[in-house]
Amino acid sequence: MDEFSPTRRALLQGAAAGAMTLAPGVALAARADDMAALRRAVEQGHDASVARIQEWIRNPTIAAERFKVPEGVAHMSKLAQEAGFQKIRTVPTGGVPAVFATLDVGAPKWLGIYFMYDVKQFDPAEWSVPPLEGRLVDRPGVGKVIMGRGAVNQKGPEGAFLAALHAFRASGRKLPVNLALIAEGEEEIASPNFLTAIRDPDVLATMKKCVGVIIPSAGQAPAGNATISLGAKGAVEMEIVSDSASWGRGPAKDLHSSQFARVDSPAWRLVQALNTLMASDGHTPAVEGFLDRVEPLSTRQKALIAESARTNSEADAKKVMGVQHWINDETWEQSLERLASQPTINIQGLVSGYTGEGGKTVLPHRAVAKVELRLVPDMTKDDSVAKLKAHLVKKGFPDIEVNVTGGYGPTQTPEESGLIKAHKAVLTRAQIPYALSVRSAGSWPGVVFTGDPLRLPAAQFGIGNGNGAHAPDEYFVIEPTNPQVANLTQQTMAYVDLMYEIAAQG
Amino acid sequence: MDEFSPTRRALLQGAAAGAMTLAPGVALAARADDMAALRRAVEQGHDASVARIQEWIRNPTIAAERFKVPEGVAHMSKLAQEAGFQKIRTVPTGGVPAVFATLDVGAPKWLGIYFMYDVKQFDPAEWSVPPLEGRLVDRPGVGKVIMGRGAVNQKGPEGAFLAALHAFRASGRKLPVNLALIAEGEEEIASPNFLTAIRDPDVLATMKKCVGVIIPSAGQAPAGNATISLGAKGAVEMEIVSDSASWGRGPAKDLHSSQFARVDSPAWRLVQALNTLMASDGHTPAVEGFLDRVEPLSTRQKALIAESARTNSEADAKKVMGVQHWINDETWEQSLERLASQPTINIQGLVSGYTGEGGKTVLPHRAVAKVELRLVPDMTKDDSVAKLKAHLVKKGFPDIEVNVTGGYGPTQTPEESGLIKAHKAVLTRAQIPYALSVRSAGSWPGVVFTGDPLRLPAAQFGIGNGNGAHAPDEYFVIEPTNPQVANLTQQTMAYVDLMYEIAAQG
Repeated sequence: MDEFSPTRRALLQGAAAGAMTLAPGVALAARADDMAALRRAVEQGHDASVARIQEWIRNPTIAAERFKVPEGVAHMSKLAQEAGFQKIRTVPTGGVPAVFATLDVGAPKWLGIYFMYDVKQFDPAEWSVPPLEGRLVDRPGVGKVIMGRGAVNQKGPEGAFLAALHAFRASGRKLPVNLALIAEGEEEIASPNFLTAIRDPDVLATMKKCVGVIIPSAGQAPAGNATISLGAKGAVEMEIVSDSASWGRGPAKDLHSSQFARVDSPAWRLVQALNTLMASDGHTPAVEGFLDRVEPLSTRQKALIAESARTNSEADAKKVMGVQHWINDETWEQSLERLASQPTINIQGLVSGYTGEGGKTVLPHRAVAKVELRLVPDMTKDDSVAKLKAHLVKKGFPDIEVNVTGGYGPTQTPEESGLIKAHKAVLTRAQIPYALSVRSAGSWPGVVFTGDPLRLPAAQFGIGNGNGAHAPDEYFVIEPTNPQVANLTQQTMAYVDLMYEIAAQG
Repeated sequence: MDEFSPTRRALLQGAAAGAMTLAPGVALAARADDMAALRRAVEQGHDASVARIQEWIRNPTIAAERFKVPEGVAHMSKLAQEAGFQKIRTVPTGGVPAVFATLDVGAPKWLGIYFMYDVKQFDPAEWSVPPLEGRLVDRPGVGKVIMGRGAVNQKGPEGAFLAALHAFRASGRKLPVNLALIAEGEEEIASPNFLTAIRDPDVLATMKKCVGVIIPSAGQAPAGNATISLGAKGAVEMEIVSDSASWGRGPAKDLHSSQFARVDSPAWRLVQALNTLMASDGHTPAVEGFLDRVEPLSTRQKALIAESARTNSEADAKKVMGVQHWINDETWEQSLERLASQPTINIQGLVSGYTGEGGKTVLPHRAVAKVELRLVPDMTKDDSVAKLKAHLVKKGFPDIEVNVTGGYGPTQTPEESGLIKAHKAVLTRAQIPYALSVRSAGSWPGVVFTGDPLRLPAAQFGIGNGNGAHAPDEYFVIEPTNPQVANLTQQTMAYVDLMYEIAAQG
């Protein structure tokens, strides 16, 4: 998903560096001896860790094109095996298979780890380096980076996590928690079959034992500040189509416009169908029952948003976005509440008939609205799409096509969960300033863990920085110029610290 | 205008060859001696006439680019002078000037002639011959043609008319009518200043003396049948635009779609504004007062349409258009009545945000509907546009832009006018089968003559064939393969016959 970029998420949420003073390095608290040994092992394994990420980049799996699927499964399995996982299975999903691996050291607690082993498509012509080489590049103002498709989304952060497991093996230290790793190969096509993998009896039984699930990610902005996101809106992509073929009226192909005097217009029909979806205020969804499952913001959530409103600049946000007024001329704080809590039905694009310069006398045979739903708890993708379709039928537009191309429901994890508490503790020890975000306006498939059947805490976790997910010159920083940004060793140690922190929780 | 092509107009109106048997040549009735002498002169002048058309094609004036304006005025004046016009004036219009010329032989009647001396733009890369050479080409199944930009729209037919005047000079015969020629240089940009030329006191005084105005055109379909069109709908082209800049709300440029939770959407605003323009049936204009000036079809007009319904195939029309049902599942005859009498507000195109394959998470800053009005008597362009704008303001959309890019009101000429009677008489003598069309669904600027201040009969007149107006390889047929189609000499003689016919009318 495009929202994995911390810089973009920071912008979306207005999360800028807080008031804390920054200090370099990952500070250590308890578990000093283990941590010292593990740190030495991580440092000794640094180059092997970089090489591991580079080799993974050289073996891309692209779900949309069914490109290198068996190779991706084999590579993911090899990575798990070398990191010390004991049982490794390929889990059929009906699509690109998932890989499930367990590492049981007899610890009282299990931690779930989510990996994606697929990457987004790419066009080498747009890149300044070969996209599948994983070349080390010195990027001015950023530092030494690994550049390549998948570098930050998600092989770099996942590689930093694997490096922690290699350090445990190399230092002969015992993992403080058991691990359940579920790796999917279809994240970039919106995880159409991932729930099938979760429902595998063996996977489900093990995942249910977990205290929570983390998605390794490079969670620092270039300035060094981090955001702990307690959730994310769901996003559902679709095309709403009015077409003569499905309508049985109008022209089979674009016709001379004078014929509209006696031939029906799919373009006007789309306008009228769309109009039923939206209240007259232009932003409140009018789909019957669409808002029934919306949970209002809690007092605590409102307080977190108020804090964000205090610590961030409305003027800066409006300037960056090129916006003069919020909806209803609401306040900065109200706008942040809407960003976190308002479900939306957005028109991303309109396409019909002649779209070039000037005019052309045609009666279009087809009209398309590219629409996106953004959902909040406790809305679901299936329920929302079903209500949209039922609404169109009830309003007299049974022929209007609703072609869903992907997406998820919303995900939410309680602030008081052990996973979030541990996240806070690790960032605090690392002296990395962070903001708590009630909910990212962006989306990721966390609902697969936080929703039925697992209902587990799940969150992105990780420090360090990178950028360019889905874009050319994607990179993952291993030696940052800015000392407030974690290098590869510090990133790896944060995963070590997280596992100890979770093990130590009552 | 694109509707000048007889083949297209025939398709629009379902006017196919009637039941009359065809016979070649132009038959002569009265005025035998003059006609014989004139015919010899036309035949002797044939090659000079072809050369005159070719030379004109080599001197294009393109109003949209202000290309060769003085040259076009000079060439048009030279053509008028050589054809025998006595007084020739350049008439300023504020845009490309018009040329006005009179030929007063002291006859009791004046006939108005409309010329356009400008042509549509062209791309030589799309042509099989140089577009400005006027090359003679043998076109399989069609015959010998002059190919070039402006060949049929309108220099070929205008050249055929000029050839008639040269024949009068060469044969020493006296013109049966006086002539008032008004030639405009902005027809291809929708005649924005032509009414200014008509309102010139000298032009107005002379035009008011005319019994009617003809526009020379190649009025036969490839099969040989002709259509006498008693009028044409008006057409007004516009873009209806919703933009953050004029609204003062929404994003200055496309923004991440998650922001729709707190930022207004110009795309949704366009949908809601458009929705107010159209009744729930999806075809009846809902703009307040829009239909007030619509004149219902007369009994005679309904009878002509019924005749057209009888002589043409509904199945063929539906097949050619790819249409299964007319609006409201109406009958063939009702569909032809709507085509002639139904004013429309058509969406020709919709453009907003992301228009490529798949989806893209944007909140568009601008949305555009390419809209076209088709008007019938007694609606006018200005009144209709004013009502549309007032309607949007009244409905709460004062910020929605209505950018008119061109067009005209409707034109209509009475069937019982001398001009139409003469037209019928000439076609009958020429044994060319014709259909009477109540009103073309297409458009041309006849309203400049049939509307205020002149209120004259005005109609396209001419036989012969051509095709490709506004398209590559535009051509005008001078020696048709099909003997039912008039050659250049026969076309010229039809203008001679028309002038005698008008002179002979009581």
